[in-house]
Amino acid sequence: MSDLNKPVIVLVRPQLGENIGKAARAMLNFGLTELRLVSPRDGWPNPSAGPAASGADIVLEQAKVYATTAEAVADCAYVHATTVRKRGVTKPVIGADEAGRQVHTLAGRHAIIFGPERSGLETEDVALARNILTIPINPEFASLNLAQAVILVSYEWSRIGREIAGGDAVLVQPTLEDTLPPAPQEELEGLIAHFEQMLEPRDYFLPEGRAEATRRTLRGVLTKPGWNHLEVRTLRGVLTTLARTIRH
Amino acid sequence: MSDLNKPVIVLVRPQLGENIGKAARAMLNFGLTELRLVSPRDGWPNPSAGPAASGADIVLEQAKVYATTAEAVADCAYVHATTVRKRGVTKPVIGADEAGRQVHTLAGRHAIIFGPERSGLETEDVALARNILTIPINPEFASLNLAQAVILVSYEWSRIGREIAGGDAVLVQPTLEDTLPPAPQEELEGLIAHFEQMLEPRDYFLPEGRAEATRRTLRGVLTKPGWNHLEVRTLRGVLTTLARTIRH
Repeated sequence: MSDLNKPVIVLVRPQLGENIGKAARAMLNFGLTELRLVSPRDGWPNPSAGPAASGADIVLEQAKVYATTAEAVADCAYVHATTVRKRGVTKPVIGADEAGRQVHTLAGRHAIIFGPERSGLETEDVALARNILTIPINPEFASLNLAQAVILVSYEWSRIGREIAGGDAVLVQPTLEDTLPPAPQEELEGLIAHFEQMLEPRDYFLPEGRAEATRRTLRGVLTKPGWNHLEVRTLRGVLTTLARTIRH
Repeated sequence: MSDLNKPVIVLVRPQLGENIGKAARAMLNFGLTELRLVSPRDGWPNPSAGPAASGADIVLEQAKVYATTAEAVADCAYVHATTVRKRGVTKPVIGADEAGRQVHTLAGRHAIIFGPERSGLETEDVALARNILTIPINPEFASLNLAQAVILVSYEWSRIGREIAGGDAVLVQPTLEDTLPPAPQEELEGLIAHFEQMLEPRDYFLPEGRAEATRRTLRGVLTKPGWNHLEVRTLRGVLTTLARTIRH
């Protein structure tokens, strides 16, 4: 995926260096690296940021500082303002998924801007944006911290990118070892026959009138799993063992 | 949305109270409230948890503590283990979106389990699970903290729920008659124990050095099917029959 598809993450007037570090970590978790800081309260660099970034130093080292939000997004074609919905703002309100989709599909640089920890974005910051990005959250407990907002937005950007690339929302492709196909039917039949051979002389299929239904039930239970070759072999071993007499 | 559609969040051997608090906050952000703690390192309650929860006190107050992971998920039909992929584990690997989808669409209680901050889940915790839940992450920077993992999983559960409610989802809700839910974990444990009891005196778990791996393999084979209550009962009957001596 080319860098053009990656959004710039803009933190507007962030307060704690620790939160800047955590946001950097969240970005890098999903492969985002371009961080811009608008007028960070405690200046920049901030010694609290590094430890909180837990190794995402490259993001912090490349971070650029701007005096105003307008300057920070000057080269961006699209600005998405992350905020709870503002009264009286008449902009499209989108979720993190739709924002991710737009970043991947609308050519031009995208900036996603986040406000200060306590107060959120000001009206004039929001005014710069094309969209309002709102993460639908429990209305009775809507306190989302900065790094968590950043990780959700980064995750959605990544998820949608894979969805577009793969044409499907299935995230992790199981490897061949994880998912051997079910064993061929004849192996399954061998297993069922093995069970029946051991059960029959122990009167499992009595009374006679119920025998057919009982066989059907057992077959259903053993067919459902779709066991692969190795799993069937394991169960054959279990049955062989159970046929042994107990050691003394 | 009824409580039945909400997953239980299980933190296995969490270390810092602060992280438990942050996880609780992340849960409540998306409306999840049922937290279970397996053997928290510093005991419970933990005075560091409350401040970090930033108001999500109700989640902490209702949290339940268990000695083992098995006990914590005993009443759950589905267990999803959040972990990076383990070598040699042959379970389905799903993303947070698919996990969210399963919680909403597969009847029965779901538990999503998370390992300790540093080390992650142990092999025996993962062995309890039906699925491995892996969040696809930047392979070059894959350190995801506990609360961030919890918020991503909670967010996806919420997002998929809205998608389904909004009619976007293509999934068809299976009817109860078609698909009884998998038996609760404790019934599955009873079945596994029954197999082991019968196999052990027949030397199935020899040589000693291979015993643990053999147990894990057997557990994997028996966990995969997701047998329901009736199917488990059938197999218990099979085992009881196999313990009988052959009639002459």
